[in-house]
Amino acid sequence: MVNKKKIPNATMKRLPLYYRYFKQEEHNGNDRVSSRQISEALDIDSATIRRDFSYFGELGRKGYGYNVSSLLKFFLEHIQGNDVKNVILAGAGNLGSALLNYKFANIHDKMNVVGAFDNNKALIGKKINGIEIYSVDDLERIIEIENVEVAIMTVPMEAGQETADRLIEAGIKGILNFTPIRLNTTPDVTVHSIDLGVELQALFFQMKIK
Amino acid sequence: MVNKKKIPNATMKRLPLYYRYFKQEEHNGNDRVSSRQISEALDIDSATIRRDFSYFGELGRKGYGYNVSSLLKFFLEHIQGNDVKNVILAGAGNLGSALLNYKFANIHDKMNVVGAFDNNKALIGKKINGIEIYSVDDLERIIEIENVEVAIMTVPMEAGQETADRLIEAGIKGILNFTPIRLNTTPDVTVHSIDLGVELQALFFQMKIK
Repeated sequence: MVNKKKIPNATMKRLPLYYRYFKQEEHNGNDRVSSRQISEALDIDSATIRRDFSYFGELGRKGYGYNVSSLLKFFLEHIQGNDVKNVILAGAGNLGSALLNYKFANIHDKMNVVGAFDNNKALIGKKINGIEIYSVDDLERIIEIENVEVAIMTVPMEAGQETADRLIEAGIKGILNFTPIRLNTTPDVTVHSIDLGVELQALFFQMKIK
Repeated sequence: MVNKKKIPNATMKRLPLYYRYFKQEEHNGNDRVSSRQISEALDIDSATIRRDFSYFGELGRKGYGYNVSSLLKFFLEHIQGNDVKNVILAGAGNLGSALLNYKFANIHDKMNVVGAFDNNKALIGKKINGIEIYSVDDLERIIEIENVEVAIMTVPMEAGQETADRLIEAGIKGILNFTPIRLNTTPDVTVHSIDLGVELQALFFQMKIK
């Protein structure tokens, strides 16, 4: 049994990449992979990979590599958890609609999008991919009824902090933040931000250095 | 003068985060920051920050920290470059439309989106945020005329590899890939991928560990 508290944050951030890679390898029919293969596929140096995997217990063996199915089982049991998570989407504009159409369930089968929220009257009451768009007036009610802990935030930048405050007040514990602002939150709330501008700049930097 | 070839890939990936943070601090009127402050704001350990910054020359001093305006100047001169980059968007569906409305210019003022491409006749000829949506038949022509090297790829997953092949054949050297597939490309092409499912899973993992 691994003490989860001891896994460093930097390692945690790489777990979804490892999980995704192992899922691909399982799909391709490979039952073991070496740290070198993981390194080449994910562009993470081998020493980092071996150190990361040491936190998962004795799962790699010299000259053999890592067992794909054991690691997937390990990730699921010890990290991903088994409880279904209800998720809402705050903001059903273009980006929100794109995400409603995104097949998240393929990635995380314990996740259930229970609704999207917008203040645009033209959207309220519509369904996208089977998911209803509600008025923001219903936000607190649905979060309580559906016991929602996670929100994907795709509102305009200007509404970012205000929306986050309202989500947290209503009981949200995790926010996937697509606005480019840094959110002020209480310590019990986890925020993971995706800044599209920063990602584009990362591409420019990598091209420049190539 | 820094030998750009020697900056490790892992450091390169953090540069946009540093750049963004320093821009914020400049905006807030701060003229120096310590590695501890950077560490806390970006959730990167101080040792990594000091190592990264050592590649940028002798820009930090003990007990003083890093000078915000010198570092911003350094990033711009040595890394970001001064040439305007023309960019296209492949795919003008919900995600593509969201990106056309995104204020990329605030992030990277040397970037110019010259057009979007789609095979949906209902979209062709329309403009979003002043940017025209062209038929995919015009892809190669516009890439050549406008000397485009960078494409943001927001097509459905099924069309991902085929679209990438066509972009690369037409001369594209950098792809910001929003499809969840791993693209096969030639070695001279830089791909930076954003997988929304992996990002959501990263949030779940972080919440689990908190």
